[in-house]
Amino acid sequence: MRGIKGIGLIKMNNLPIEWLGDRVRILDQTRLPQEEVYLELGSYQDIASAIAELKIRGAPAIGVVSAYAVALSALEIESKSKEGFLERLRGISQTLAATRPTAKNLFLAIERMEQVANAGEGVEQIKKALVDEAVKIHSEEVEATRRLSQLGAELIENGFTILTHCNTGALATAGYGTALGVIRQAKAQGKKLKVLATETRPLLQGAGLTTWELKKAGIPFTLITDSMAGYFMKRGEVDCILVGADRIAANGDTANKIGTYTLAVLAMEHGIPFYVAAPTTTIDLSLTSGDEIPIEQRSPEEVTHIQGVSIAPDGTQAANPAFDVTPHYYITAIITEKGIITEPYVERLKGIQGVR
Amino acid sequence: MRGIKGIGLIKMNNLPIEWLGDRVRILDQTRLPQEEVYLELGSYQDIASAIAELKIRGAPAIGVVSAYAVALSALEIESKSKEGFLERLRGISQTLAATRPTAKNLFLAIERMEQVANAGEGVEQIKKALVDEAVKIHSEEVEATRRLSQLGAELIENGFTILTHCNTGALATAGYGTALGVIRQAKAQGKKLKVLATETRPLLQGAGLTTWELKKAGIPFTLITDSMAGYFMKRGEVDCILVGADRIAANGDTANKIGTYTLAVLAMEHGIPFYVAAPTTTIDLSLTSGDEIPIEQRSPEEVTHIQGVSIAPDGTQAANPAFDVTPHYYITAIITEKGIITEPYVERLKGIQGVR
Repeated sequence: MRGIKGIGLIKMNNLPIEWLGDRVRILDQTRLPQEEVYLELGSYQDIASAIAELKIRGAPAIGVVSAYAVALSALEIESKSKEGFLERLRGISQTLAATRPTAKNLFLAIERMEQVANAGEGVEQIKKALVDEAVKIHSEEVEATRRLSQLGAELIENGFTILTHCNTGALATAGYGTALGVIRQAKAQGKKLKVLATETRPLLQGAGLTTWELKKAGIPFTLITDSMAGYFMKRGEVDCILVGADRIAANGDTANKIGTYTLAVLAMEHGIPFYVAAPTTTIDLSLTSGDEIPIEQRSPEEVTHIQGVSIAPDGTQAANPAFDVTPHYYITAIITEKGIITEPYVERLKGIQGVR
Repeated sequence: MRGIKGIGLIKMNNLPIEWLGDRVRILDQTRLPQEEVYLELGSYQDIASAIAELKIRGAPAIGVVSAYAVALSALEIESKSKEGFLERLRGISQTLAATRPTAKNLFLAIERMEQVANAGEGVEQIKKALVDEAVKIHSEEVEATRRLSQLGAELIENGFTILTHCNTGALATAGYGTALGVIRQAKAQGKKLKVLATETRPLLQGAGLTTWELKKAGIPFTLITDSMAGYFMKRGEVDCILVGADRIAANGDTANKIGTYTLAVLAMEHGIPFYVAAPTTTIDLSLTSGDEIPIEQRSPEEVTHIQGVSIAPDGTQAANPAFDVTPHYYITAIITEKGIITEPYVERLKGIQGVR
């Protein structure tokens, strides 16, 4: 995947996700920005833990590693009968599916892997097919983010200040990034840009990961707390908002990192375009609206503690919804690898999904 | 001041601000919620540092301690001539005024102290008059927060969930609190309440101070990140928003902790009442609109570091406006000790200020 024409991958010691034949190497995102530490995960259990603990995160990225997890687990299953093999594989898929409930990409990757397994002839042939499918899912996701970055960059004008939330770059996508891919492509086109990066509490992916990628990409940025977004919009210092997505319902309602909905409301109030960038693997046509998207509720400790240090009195009750849903009418456009979609989303999202 | 009828003061080992004749004792708010540490400040320089370092914070509270700082400095001036004394006092007032630019109460307290000094006869009489005036400012501020808490509590209905931002309690006001005073008074009236307390990045006054006061007051609360406010409003789980103020312009535009403006926009979008609670000492009729309110820009390190731990790559540029301005048309009502004010704010704020 190195050397694809265009913006180029973010320079790291290794790729953020790499298949090594009998294990997957990932960059441990919980160690950034302090240290660039890679983990080699040799079992699906290790991958499931890495997903649950956010060592790997971002909807497209967890889709890719969960496909590798299914492939790895398949290699280890000793059953010689296809039936026994498939039964064992279904149990493993359920374990993986239980790691994080919101991102569509995770479920889609597992579904694709299951279909390949079901369609196979013998166990050995299926094992090989599953590895091939995981590699294919990975390269398709990389290509999708490259393509959507190119399409989305057309929306970004020279001199723009772009406000982005959470991390949507190479780390989140295994490839070029979604919102951050669009920004990097616009910069590669020679446009002068500035980014306002929200820190993204509780887990500070903006402060720790987006800044790390922007620094490597040589794009000027200012870090702000989530609470400062309105201040800068009111001052007229934001030209557009660009975020990723974890799941997009059939009507365009979009689940993304907690705080996204607030940014969308602010954007509308100030007449600022609000763009969602996501590969089509994030779209879930089975859900009529965003009300049906399951929202992950994470540990209150992520709110009451920051990097292990308590910020609240002992015993403080805290809420920790990891995502919120932005209704489609706040979204100016959804940038996918198959085109830029605008209202009416219901028809257009259906149309674009059919193209796959 | 103990024993005033009504809600009662928050139980601490000492009052948050106490005049001890030749020094001021304050509760060090930077040590909460871990430790209840009191500092005895014997000079105006110590008080100026405590204000700048946020050991004491909250618009009414910094008004009170700056008055004590002027009194303390006066006691130390050795000049026997009134002219020399006043000249020295003006220099000290300027030092104090330079600590924090946004809160009106600071400037108003210093102005009142200067007027008393100018009106005095001899140096010794002025020194005594300044101490008396500082004590008067203190007790007036306590009484104002008690009164506005009573008036504001009428707006709170049984069963309400109230979202509040930053800290506006005993700590911030030397008395009963503004927004938090209203909440405590409503609770004292027997109303069943729940509070959603925003953590209030960057300095986490919500997570560390508001939770500490709510816990002491026995009011159930849930801590949320600033980015979660929209999520809970959209779910219909917020009945009103109640915040304090650092300065209110003649047209009702209100400067308050960064993030307040975002909450106001969200409140309007969801049809939720948005209340500002503040003593009239926070009102600045000399400013036509909020555009004229100076906004303090604090150190970027408060954003890039949390409790001394870095959360961003080295050299990250960050913005740190400490306040934002909420235009008056987002504000349902301003709760003061002289009444609850609604539109048209221009006439009504002028009317209420005239009453002083």
